[in-house]
Amino acid sequence: MVTIKDVASRAGVSITTVSRVMNNRGPLSEATKKAVYDAMKELGYLPNDVARALGKNSLNIIGLIVPTIKHPFFGEMVHEFEYETYLRGYKLMVFASNYDYEKEKQCVSLLRRNMVDCIIYASHSMGTDFLEDIHIPAVTLENVFSGLPAILSDNAQGGNLATRHLIARGCKKIVHISGQQDLRLSADERTKAFIAACERKKVAYRIYSADEKMLNEMDYSNLISRVFNENPDMDGIFASSDIIAAQCIQAAWSFGYRIPEEVKIVGYDDICLSRMTYPPLTTVRQNIKDLVKTAMDTVVDLIEEKDVPDIQTIPVTFIERRTT
Amino acid sequence: MVTIKDVASRAGVSITTVSRVMNNRGPLSEATKKAVYDAMKELGYLPNDVARALGKNSLNIIGLIVPTIKHPFFGEMVHEFEYETYLRGYKLMVFASNYDYEKEKQCVSLLRRNMVDCIIYASHSMGTDFLEDIHIPAVTLENVFSGLPAILSDNAQGGNLATRHLIARGCKKIVHISGQQDLRLSADERTKAFIAACERKKVAYRIYSADEKMLNEMDYSNLISRVFNENPDMDGIFASSDIIAAQCIQAAWSFGYRIPEEVKIVGYDDICLSRMTYPPLTTVRQNIKDLVKTAMDTVVDLIEEKDVPDIQTIPVTFIERRTT
Repeated sequence: MVTIKDVASRAGVSITTVSRVMNNRGPLSEATKKAVYDAMKELGYLPNDVARALGKNSLNIIGLIVPTIKHPFFGEMVHEFEYETYLRGYKLMVFASNYDYEKEKQCVSLLRRNMVDCIIYASHSMGTDFLEDIHIPAVTLENVFSGLPAILSDNAQGGNLATRHLIARGCKKIVHISGQQDLRLSADERTKAFIAACERKKVAYRIYSADEKMLNEMDYSNLISRVFNENPDMDGIFASSDIIAAQCIQAAWSFGYRIPEEVKIVGYDDICLSRMTYPPLTTVRQNIKDLVKTAMDTVVDLIEEKDVPDIQTIPVTFIERRTT
Repeated sequence: MVTIKDVASRAGVSITTVSRVMNNRGPLSEATKKAVYDAMKELGYLPNDVARALGKNSLNIIGLIVPTIKHPFFGEMVHEFEYETYLRGYKLMVFASNYDYEKEKQCVSLLRRNMVDCIIYASHSMGTDFLEDIHIPAVTLENVFSGLPAILSDNAQGGNLATRHLIARGCKKIVHISGQQDLRLSADERTKAFIAACERKKVAYRIYSADEKMLNEMDYSNLISRVFNENPDMDGIFASSDIIAAQCIQAAWSFGYRIPEEVKIVGYDDICLSRMTYPPLTTVRQNIKDLVKTAMDTVVDLIEEKDVPDIQTIPVTFIERRTT
């Protein structure tokens, strides 16, 4: 192992000077700096952090796989992960898979080969077999199919709160616009809770499902036009994302409905957008901060080889604004 | 250096078996896997990627510093950086500084000590002295004050296009709501271009500036109420972000203005939100894809020790929707 002493000797300066160059402290001539950096490079000297990390077989990196970062929900999630990893002395390496199974498989393999301390899988694609036998601590967010410890948002509670609120406000026919339905997502629980609440209260309902293309392009306008054309008698909409709900508000105005008098709309997520529609959107807040904090606490427990629960469910919060 | 042969010998298996365990290929018993992983741990064996990286003094990591990831503009930017880094065989390590000078300084120091290949600084805070003499390739986005190669969006063009469009649509008194004005941001060029265009065409104008608190909380409602109360005669608004513009649309509806008949609104950025307001927002698109691609091309040139331009300016695109 090359030491700081070797660097000092090769550069023809003192150990103190090498240390000052590395920490960029004190007055130093450009020539001295260059000599030290050249010596470090020639000798293959490793910075302290890397050398220390190799000693304990860990680079202090958390690997995070999300489907996208440009969707505001996942942008907020990555933001919170950065905060929580930094707080705990780790660094965050992030991958956006675009729901692509092959990329996810490659990313997991890449992370395994690069000595990350842990993998957090917050996506979903065609399968999760690449998460089996990885021999690295790992948790999933909103995905119960890998057998890894899972952190879930309480989707059943969210679906129930949204639907009961619309019924309490007097809605007689409610349309639910769900996400993609063939992926076995935890979010499917919202739809199940919607159906249960409508049937319990004997309220008429209909369900429309978005597809992957709409999700990727964040454009639900064709589906929503169909909803409005096919359901002139509807008086409530429960959208499974704020992005869908905002486009329902646009359609309601275009079709000449007054909100909330003639049609009431509830979204899901409580991303920043929900405060910026007109009227501001009633929605179900996914507590991203708590989801991420719980995931990171679990990760740290796994790294320290402690026992962790198989599934942890984080409550949602109902946020009443002015679309209901 | 510990080799794969040492691992095989310690685990009492063949080299092929170690290789299969590391690549998770073929049928393998749990006992075999455990023996191999235990041997790797005991011997401090480094995965190929890390060992190879150390040989060339690089972990193939790009370090990115942004102020925030939850603001949709920066979420899209981080998304594009992930795409471009992955495409080029690098991994992305991301930090969100919340515009905090001390955190930015710490992140740069952390990145320097961790053998990243390059730093991309896409933020702005009280200063950039921590970017001096870092002896790692580095570029900045939308920041010309560090002396590092800078990639800029053409803010003067954006301000000019927005203002000329409002004037061409017949506006006689235009209010500009700018971002924070005391940070010497490249975005200040939008305001300068706005003033120049109004004065050239002799159109009345007023300027209001947001502050850091509004930016952090994405809540401009108090400032916008003041704008509407103090300017009953305004017929055009040029907002320096889509977030501000969306809240101007809310205020216009609340104050009883018809959009675009009585007040016309132009935003900035073209984040996803701008397609989801009612009416959809006319705005200036910052070409994030091109900004990020240019930054990454420049970074790769720097890593390969090629010459790069001091400043590269990326054009904006005017997007006409239905608020003007």
